[in-house]
Formats: sequence, C-alpha cells, structure tokens
Amino acid sequence: MAQWVRFFTEGETRFGTLAHGIITEYCGDMFAEHSLSGREFALAAVKLLRPCEPSKLIGLWNNFQERAVVENLHKPAHPLYFLKAANSFAGQGEVIPRPSTYNGMVVFEGELGIVIGKRCKGVSLEQAPDYVFGYTCVNDVTARDLLKQDPVFVHWTRAKSFDQFGVFGPSIATGLDASELRVRVELNGEEKQNYPVADMFFSPHDIVSQISHDMTLEAGDIIACGTSVGVCGMNDGDTVVVSIAGIGELTNRFG
Amino acid sequence: MAQWVRFFTEGETRFGTLAHGIITEYCGDMFAEHSLSGREFALAAVKLLRPCEPSKLIGLWNNFQERAVVENLHKPAHPLYFLKAANSFAGQGEVIPRPSTYNGMVVFEGELGIVIGKRCKGVSLEQAPDYVFGYTCVNDVTARDLLKQDPVFVHWTRAKSFDQFGVFGPSIATGLDASELRVRVELNGEEKQNYPVADMFFSPHDIVSQISHDMTLEAGDIIACGTSVGVCGMNDGDTVVVSIAGIGELTNRFG
Repeated sequence: MAQWVRFFTEGETRFGTLAHGIITEYCGDMFAEHSLSGREFALAAVKLLRPCEPSKLIGLWNNFQERAVVENLHKPAHPLYFLKAANSFAGQGEVIPRPSTYNGMVVFEGELGIVIGKRCKGVSLEQAPDYVFGYTCVNDVTARDLLKQDPVFVHWTRAKSFDQFGVFGPSIATGLDASELRVRVELNGEEKQNYPVADMFFSPHDIVSQISHDMTLEAGDIIACGTSVGVCGMNDGDTVVVSIAGIGELTNRFG
Repeated sequence: MAQWVRFFTEGETRFGTLAHGIITEYCGDMFAEHSLSGREFALAAVKLLRPCEPSKLIGLWNNFQERAVVENLHKPAHPLYFLKAANSFAGQGEVIPRPSTYNGMVVFEGELGIVIGKRCKGVSLEQAPDYVFGYTCVNDVTARDLLKQDPVFVHWTRAKSFDQFGVFGPSIATGLDASELRVRVELNGEEKQNYPVADMFFSPHDIVSQISHDMTLEAGDIIACGTSVGVCGMNDGDTVVVSIAGIGELTNRFG
C-alpha cells in the first residue's frame, strides 16, 4: 500500500510516495521503472499537483444500483461512458471556476477513479487487476442544466468539460481492495454522499476489461466509475471534499 | 499558403512544409517559433505521420443544412459536439481496423477539421481567425449501430473512439478561405460525399468562438466541423479517401 503523488518544488515537477506528511521522492516513471532519489520533502512545503496526466479521462453513467432505483434506470448491457476533455483536468486545491457563460446548477459528483498502470487492450476480467495501478478520488463536476438543453442531443461533453471540471487526486493509492471502499463527499463540512463501491453494476475490474475491448487504455488513463445518490448543486464560494479512505481528501472551492 | 506535415525519417519525428513532393524541414514548434533547418526530404522517402498531436479532438453533430433537412433536424441554439479519445487518433495511410467485438456498420464521415494555433479562451467571432492555424481533412469513423444500442443513453464515445477511428491529415493547410472549400469522399474510387463548407450552420470561426467560451482550446487541438449527406458503411478491405483542395488526400484502408 502506497499513496503516489506528483508535486512541484525547487522549479521542478517531481513524484513520490506520501506518508505521515512526508513525501519520499522517486526518479523515473511512476508507471514504469523508478527508484528512490534519496530526497524527502515535507508535504506542507510543496505544491501538490494532480497525480498523473491522463491521455483520457473516461466517466461512467448509471453504474450504481441505489441511484438507478431512484432514477428508474436498470443495469445497462455494457458500461455507459463519456469523456472529459484535458482542459478540465484539475487537482487538489485548485479552484473550480463557474463558467462565465452559464448561470445554471453546477453539481459535484464524488467518484472512485481507476488509474491504469500499463497499456492494455482486450484484457479479460481475470487479467484486469494486472493493469490497474491504483485508485484516486474524482470529482466529476457537471453543469447539469446543459445536459438536456438541446431537445435532441444530450450534451455530455459540454456539461462536463469546462475548465477544471475534471478534478482528481490527491494521491493514487495502490494495494486497496476497491470492493471495501466508500466514497464520501462533504459540502461546506456537511456530508452529502457516502456510498459503497460494492453497489456498482460493473466492478472496477469488469469496467477495465470491458472498456479495454473498446479502446486501448494507456498508463495514467483514468476511468471514473460513476456516482451514486446525494449529488447536489454548489454555490459560489462552497468548498467540496471528495474522500476515500486510503487515498485521501480531494478539496476544492467552487466559483 | 503552406501545407504543414509531420513525418518520420532517420530515426526522428520531424516537421516541415510540403510542395511538389518535397518537404522543406523546419526546427522548433509548428505552432510557435520555428526556423528552416536547411534540409529537404522527398515525401516518397519518409513516413508521413498525423500532422499534430491534439490534446483533444472535438467533433460536431448536426452542422449542415442539407443533412438536417434529410434527417428532419433544425439549426441548434449552440454547436453540439462530442470528443474522440486519443487512442482513436490516426493519420494518412494507417489501417482503420474493424473492432474485434463489433460486427455492425462502420461508416466514414468526411469532415473539415479546424486546427487551433494558439491557446485561447472566450474569443469573439472577430478574434477567432487569429487562433486558427489552418485546416485539415478528418475522417470521423463511427460504429453507427452502437450509437443507439442502449435504450436511454446515446453512446457517442463508444461509437466514435475505437482505435484509429479519429483519422486526420495528411497536412494542415494555412491561408485557405474555408467558405470556398468542398469536402469530398471516395470509397473504392467512387464519389460518396461532395459538399460545400459554406452549407454549415456554424462557420469555422463561429465554432471556434463559441466552443472557446466553453473550454480552453490549445495549439494543435482539432475541431471536426461535422459531416453532410452521403455517409455510408464500409466493408472490410475498402479504401476511403477524404480530400479537400489545398489540404490533400487522406487515404485509409478499413478492416
């Protein structure tokens, strides 16, 4: 079990493992060969970055039984997903700005993020664990009123890809058993979401296997597993915290 | 007017301008500072690559009047778009493989691609030309039967993001007047599409302005402007050529 982080200090982007407020730095590639640099940094003295730079961030829709009951949905035949554009990627502590041209509701969606460790295509359910590096927290921020503004086109991309709407971090945790995790979200200190990963229609390993049959997955790619009940709107100045035990707290201010 | 290309030879990825079968090499950044390297290469002696590496490839839907009439659609209030994942990016001459898990119809969609030249956000219609580097040909390949396979979720991402389904190139042409261009597609030598860019609901400059209000656009990002009438399915072994005068011919084999 380790918490991998990326950070910026002394003019360089670096990475390492975090424990008890101290980052042990590594050199090389987080997802391939790496070795200890011999240096340590205090977390409080560095700027934490998003933990990786995905070539794609995939988000699932309708993946939780409890939410499906509320919304009168059923388990889909295949995982249903959309993409969030690279300009939306943001990390721990970054402000999520309200889009300047949109006055409607902006919701948080706390989610478990799967981080791919090695390029893969067409992997079986049994092989899938070999390609999962670890897990991160995701806040799949959504300008909800834009989804169904057009009468004939559900506008997933526009609603979900505003700048800083794809938040993930603070770490990528290895060695976790995803089926035992819970995703929690607090808005201004009040708990809004607290749901078990075990309630998913498609488990993380099933998702990796099925989506890897659709497209090549690359090291550092993230698949956000969808959200459950408790999503709600944010007001300007609100602070949202997505947390998963073992990964940490992903804290951002909105607006 | 120039045709910018990327290519691989002598163990390195290089770029330059193409004229009369000769590439004049440049050093630096295609979208920023660059200068002549002093070397020339015969096009026939190098491997042409896709002309840039976008941080995102956006595709428009329902952007042509002639097609809208056929499909009983109307001009949308805002450009409607989806994303194609990075694993789908492919260039001139690459094979477009049939997905191993899908036996349905795979269609070509010939499109004009806008290539962004500088990072921009919230630009006006008047400013938009300053941020367009040039234009390329796009083949927005689509596994059409997957779009509406799920009863409640139109699966744009899955249908459009299989490996090598996002083809663009062969060059990025500068100095063209987009409103005078026509997009042509030949399948096995037979013309299937031949439509004017001037038939768009949203012109390229209007698209750049409106989408730049939704998300930051980066140098090298591509916006495919949507397709018009004449799209049809491809059989294994078919050769598809998307061409636009001044940009060149984008030729790929399917299956």
